Amino acid sequence: MEHQSRPRRRGRPSSTRAQNAIREAATRIFIERGFSAASIRDIATAAAVDPSIVIRHFGSKEGLFLETVSVDEGLRGITDGPLEGLGERILERLVLRSGEEQQRVFRALVGAIDRAEVRTYFEQSANRHVSQPLSQRLEGPDPELRAELVTAQIAGLLMKLWVLEPPCEDKARVERLVRIYGYALQVLIDV
Amino acid sequence: MEHQSRPRRRGRPSSTRAQNAIREAATRIFIERGFSAASIRDIATAAAVDPSIVIRHFGSKEGLFLETVSVDEGLRGITDGPLEGLGERILERLVLRSGEEQQRVFRALVGAIDRAEVRTYFEQSANRHVSQPLSQRLEGPDPELRAELVTAQIAGLLMKLWVLEPPCEDKARVERLVRIYGYALQVLIDV
Repeated sequence: MEHQSRPRRRGRPSSTRAQNAIREAATRIFIERGFSAASIRDIATAAAVDPSIVIRHFGSKEGLFLETVSVDEGLRGITDGPLEGLGERILERLVLRSGEEQQRVFRALVGAIDRAEVRTYFEQSANRHVSQPLSQRLEGPDPELRAELVTAQIAGLLMKLWVLEPPCEDKARVERLVRIYGYALQVLIDV
Repeated sequence: MEHQSRPRRRGRPSSTRAQNAIREAATRIFIERGFSAASIRDIATAAAVDPSIVIRHFGSKEGLFLETVSVDEGLRGITDGPLEGLGERILERLVLRSGEEQQRVFRALVGAIDRAEVRTYFEQSANRHVSQPLSQRLEGPDPELRAELVTAQIAGLLMKLWVLEPPCEDKARVERLVRIYGYALQVLIDV
């Protein structure tokens, strides 16, 4: 938890409490409503502080969003393990074993992608967790380009499943999807 | 042109003129600034009408957006021609031969994707022009699912090239990309 891992600043306990309350309210409201529909005012009300306090601590709605909504945890180590079968394993983890919160976070991020800060964060996370570690392990020609294209394939699938379509209840269909699309990822991993 | 293809309504010439002026201003401003940063007020000012006129004719900012910003032209017939080599041909058309306006329209649409109307439009266009015509032509198992996954691959690549990254000036790199990613599309077309 954020408030346990950071040393508490002496003499400013109420400020720390306010920040934690704002973080908690913002995480919940951004994930529930998406970026556009969440207002600083609503987050401030839920955190029982004045909106000016939110701006003083986090600068802007974009700043608060990027401090509270993160895809990093869901992507960490996702390219680990043998290259053989990696395409399918990446999709199993993302598509079959991700929680609803991870899906909503992705949806909130894509929904705010016309903000430059959000775009930069999105690209940097994808590079750090997928493109870069994968490109270092690929053999054959164009390893960097192939790794970036695998990342694009993944983003396209998550757009389809988590942003554009309603949740799919048909498990057999989702498993077929993981197998078929995993094969398309694998051809760029193997060449 | 919009104002030439529609019969002019008798007795309401000024209304038609206003609508055309609003359409032209909206197309330009949405493409230049994206959905969020474009305001009804700015569009009304550019069209020399009152903002209430914009709302009366188009209902909402989302409504005006979807009436003026369209990906249909750029996608029409994109799955035509022999299935052999189709993956690469789709990408040649989209990546190598698309104009800057098409890229900006896509970017504006993705930037507004947290609006349900925009999401629905985006998905319907992709279905109408890519998934449906392709699935009708595919042989082998799961033609519908494979066609939808090709569409997801394409969306992921356009996200990368047109939304997340600055324009790539390195033509050799873009041509390699079309060849490599075209191959990944083709494996889902051929199975």
